[in-house]
Amino acid sequence: MTLIDGKATAATIKAEIKAEVERIVAAGGKRPHLAAVLVGHDGGSETYVRNKVLACEACGFRSSLIRYEDTITEAELLDCVKQLNEDADVDGFIVQLPLPKHISEQKVIEAIDYRKDVDGFHPINVGRMAIGLPCYISATPKGILELLRRYDIETSGKKCVVLGRSNIVGKPMAQLMMQKQYGDATVTVCHSRSRNLREECLAADIIIAAIGRPEFLTADMVKPGAVVIDVGTTRVPDATRPKGFRLCGDVDFANVASLCSHITPVPGGVGPMTICMLMLNTLAAGKREYYQ
Amino acid sequence: MTLIDGKATAATIKAEIKAEVERIVAAGGKRPHLAAVLVGHDGGSETYVRNKVLACEACGFRSSLIRYEDTITEAELLDCVKQLNEDADVDGFIVQLPLPKHISEQKVIEAIDYRKDVDGFHPINVGRMAIGLPCYISATPKGILELLRRYDIETSGKKCVVLGRSNIVGKPMAQLMMQKQYGDATVTVCHSRSRNLREECLAADIIIAAIGRPEFLTADMVKPGAVVIDVGTTRVPDATRPKGFRLCGDVDFANVASLCSHITPVPGGVGPMTICMLMLNTLAAGKREYYQ
Repeated sequence: MTLIDGKATAATIKAEIKAEVERIVAAGGKRPHLAAVLVGHDGGSETYVRNKVLACEACGFRSSLIRYEDTITEAELLDCVKQLNEDADVDGFIVQLPLPKHISEQKVIEAIDYRKDVDGFHPINVGRMAIGLPCYISATPKGILELLRRYDIETSGKKCVVLGRSNIVGKPMAQLMMQKQYGDATVTVCHSRSRNLREECLAADIIIAAIGRPEFLTADMVKPGAVVIDVGTTRVPDATRPKGFRLCGDVDFANVASLCSHITPVPGGVGPMTICMLMLNTLAAGKREYYQ
Repeated sequence: MTLIDGKATAATIKAEIKAEVERIVAAGGKRPHLAAVLVGHDGGSETYVRNKVLACEACGFRSSLIRYEDTITEAELLDCVKQLNEDADVDGFIVQLPLPKHISEQKVIEAIDYRKDVDGFHPINVGRMAIGLPCYISATPKGILELLRRYDIETSGKKCVVLGRSNIVGKPMAQLMMQKQYGDATVTVCHSRSRNLREECLAADIIIAAIGRPEFLTADMVKPGAVVIDVGTTRVPDATRPKGFRLCGDVDFANVASLCSHITPVPGGVGPMTICMLMLNTLAAGKREYYQ
């Protein structure tokens, strides 16, 4: 069994990005610039954005953090998006989600210039991904593809089961895994309404669990030799931990791991890859790799 | 076994559209207006566009046909698209594909205002469909959903196998069938690289065959009681036919039909629904149903 080390892989990729940025800058090119907009003081969002800023430093990017109180109006936030769209120095930017309830997240996402949409949430990027055109691919599915690639896991012609059909993970993951230039696999998407989940999973060479139910995937659902990617990160109360909770994946790791050819742990698997993929998208934005 | 009659269903829907258009017009509203751009003299395209114009008449729409010789430049065609985007009387329009080789189809598709993109090919519509937002859904997948709905075929929680992963049929079909508000099914997408195709199909309650290989789906691949939707329309040489060919589906109809609870014939199944769905999209365009 090979443990897929997302933390180490992310560190390697960030070092690769930094080396490329230094080459670009040494050749007289522009240092990529990521801006992040943070509304309010949600604890999780604060942590994510801080880690994104730190990752920018590790990659040699310029970063800007724009903060607003959660009393900001939708119109004011849309105006901020407009300014970032027009700011020629900003190559890509994100608006950290979730937003306060009085602001339409979808409206904000659609206001972002798709050429700077390094989160890959704009419908144009989602649509281009679906039909196989160059685009920003959102962080979690892109990170999983990268892990599979870097661990030399064959996907072409394999049977892949995606558990979950969220817009952020399940659906794009399925779309990528089925496409010839990405996974080229036979893909089944299972969800809350699916029957015979155990049989579906048992037939899979690769299982990508993104269902948000702690330890949902148990040993009796996994074929020996399967590859298991765990996207779950549910906070489970745990009095023995300093923060009072532990992160729990969708996989019963203790009993499943020994069956697998490869498995990602939680934490330390898919999680560390996501911010790293945002960095890859920002590098692509700086290089105008997908759009002029 | 129930034969799914696409021709009759399409006629019913067109009558419904016409009734609604007359209500709209009687109430002082605007008659929906579809424009079609046809480049060159490809026989298939001529037929499609003629049938689209006839369907507009049947639905009480206004239609405009804009013809160009295949010597038109890309810039000239893009200029035509721009004019149609700006023409307030045109609610929706299509550029009939394929286009001559010197013109980028993707560039033309992306030049169309997504709010008038009644073919549903623009990345914004593709992306919005993928994440479950209101949008124009392309004709073939939309037509199949409509057939399933009008024949009261339960899809929620069912196992659906989609054969083929084209941008026009397989991929959007899979995306729709998996979404809660459309098919809500467990969806597997199979393609040229898939193994165990027979087993995958045998497990399916619903098979949507869009692989473009005549009579590919044989009786040994179909579970008794399954629903079979045949999207294939390959021209097979046939000296006994006036045109020298017959249309052949992806399903070995003669041997599969008796096994099925429902099956679409070729021709007369999915085919007649596609133009009809373009009409539904045009009606939605006229009513500004998805976009202002």
